[in-house]
Amino acid sequence: MIKVFGHYSPDTDSTGSPLIWAWYLSEIEGTPAKAVLLGEPNTEAKFVLDQWQVAQPEIIRELAEGEPVVIVDTNNPDELPANINKADIRAIIDHHKLVGGLETKGPINITIRPLACTATIMFNLIGKHMAQAPKAIKGLMLSCILSDTLEFRSPTTTDEDRAVAHALADELGIDLSEYAAQMFAAKSDVSDFSEAELLKMDAKKYAVGGKTFRISVLETTSPDQILARKDALVAAMPGVAAEDGADEVMLFVIDILKEEATLLVPSDTIRQVAEKSFGVTVEGDEVVLPGVMSRKKQIIPALTL
Amino acid sequence: MIKVFGHYSPDTDSTGSPLIWAWYLSEIEGTPAKAVLLGEPNTEAKFVLDQWQVAQPEIIRELAEGEPVVIVDTNNPDELPANINKADIRAIIDHHKLVGGLETKGPINITIRPLACTATIMFNLIGKHMAQAPKAIKGLMLSCILSDTLEFRSPTTTDEDRAVAHALADELGIDLSEYAAQMFAAKSDVSDFSEAELLKMDAKKYAVGGKTFRISVLETTSPDQILARKDALVAAMPGVAAEDGADEVMLFVIDILKEEATLLVPSDTIRQVAEKSFGVTVEGDEVVLPGVMSRKKQIIPALTL
Repeated sequence: MIKVFGHYSPDTDSTGSPLIWAWYLSEIEGTPAKAVLLGEPNTEAKFVLDQWQVAQPEIIRELAEGEPVVIVDTNNPDELPANINKADIRAIIDHHKLVGGLETKGPINITIRPLACTATIMFNLIGKHMAQAPKAIKGLMLSCILSDTLEFRSPTTTDEDRAVAHALADELGIDLSEYAAQMFAAKSDVSDFSEAELLKMDAKKYAVGGKTFRISVLETTSPDQILARKDALVAAMPGVAAEDGADEVMLFVIDILKEEATLLVPSDTIRQVAEKSFGVTVEGDEVVLPGVMSRKKQIIPALTL
Repeated sequence: MIKVFGHYSPDTDSTGSPLIWAWYLSEIEGTPAKAVLLGEPNTEAKFVLDQWQVAQPEIIRELAEGEPVVIVDTNNPDELPANINKADIRAIIDHHKLVGGLETKGPINITIRPLACTATIMFNLIGKHMAQAPKAIKGLMLSCILSDTLEFRSPTTTDEDRAVAHALADELGIDLSEYAAQMFAAKSDVSDFSEAELLKMDAKKYAVGGKTFRISVLETTSPDQILARKDALVAAMPGVAAEDGADEVMLFVIDILKEEATLLVPSDTIRQVAEKSFGVTVEGDEVVLPGVMSRKKQIIPALTL
């Protein structure tokens, strides 16, 4: 049985894509496969699973040596089990930059595309067999695309993501904007999480100018709910940074509706990074970055120290 | 202008695929691109260029920082210019195992498939636009597939490679076997090369049991021509190994027609590797390995020390 999984912090794409691909492998290719998760899915992903009546996949923490796996929505060994290169990697489907570090024993199928969402790539790979996809699989695909594109607001959005999402919404008879609003509301309800959990929810490590940052992003339609906890979030940062071997945490609170990010500025280093990277002047302990919505396209490439 | 290239030792696939893809990018996608080579093409590749009246691409030795490139037929930084990760890698199309080591600045198109030949992958990617391909492009594609599959004799051959080659040969009105025989005869004419050049012609470094070997392969329809130079080849081995930081050179002379390999056994270490890896008993300074034709599928995976 092939295990299909995404990265350690399952958002909607990293929860939905494994389910989509496990369906395709099992039902269309005839290769038994099951989706698993490498961590607790976020509140939006849980809402999506409920919505399409799909059981939450089992969460696994370890892989056996030689175990057959398919990796989706990442190609970064840091976001995967430590022994990933000892597994039998059968395929990789992803939409992130090539990080280097994964190795395979023989030639395998690797499909990386500069699209906003793994599910869009899968839609193309599945091709005509999409006609056989049950409603839940189509619903998961639509959800992945709406999530990763922030309903087409993110600059990562391509015409292909948009076209696939609209086609799926039409077929499912769903009001795309209404459904997206429900998803984003689910993601924005973070009252159950501790500050440390919030900082770790959607974080990627990135090194710049000799320092390593944990770049945390929280996409929300209620930024006030998060910013009200600013002092506690800042207090939790050193612990979270240390846990991950990073120097500091940078938290970007992305306002999906206003299409802007608020970066917390708890230190001189982060003030410097913010001013150099985004051409702003920081006064106080936060700074608003108009139009910034994508870590991949707008934050990581801009970072300088 | 995007430069499209394969690896440092251009065989037919690594010479033809860049030309095919540069045509596709320039003529179909409208992105100006040109094929270049990272080394002198082998005699088979030169024959193929002549046959289809395609000018030999310029040989380059260096890349400028930030230069836009597409890498085909390899994903191994050791087979590419030293500063490859400073280039602007726009796409990778390959059929080898993922080695790890290439990095990209953003998400790009990466297509790796477990097929025998890069050109087969390109045929699929180009899809319906193949109708616009000139004869020379189709001829190059056919040549790449015949070369990499040794006219379907290699165990790397898939049904897809076979089907694409037959379709192209039909369309071009070519007798596939006759043409393949001409290609292999061209590859087998190695009289102009020194022993060191022969050892370096098609070689990949591979580490096993704490030792590093340079695994050289010579595919030929006239093995006697090469084996007659055995003493001189063995004498050239230490120099070639040292040049590449390897401990020893293993030379496999692949008899395309008899479908077997002859491994030269100049040392106790290589005798041990041969016996352990291929379950044979070595007597004398060479050993015949029946059915062995593919470094990728049959040699590298078997190697033990």
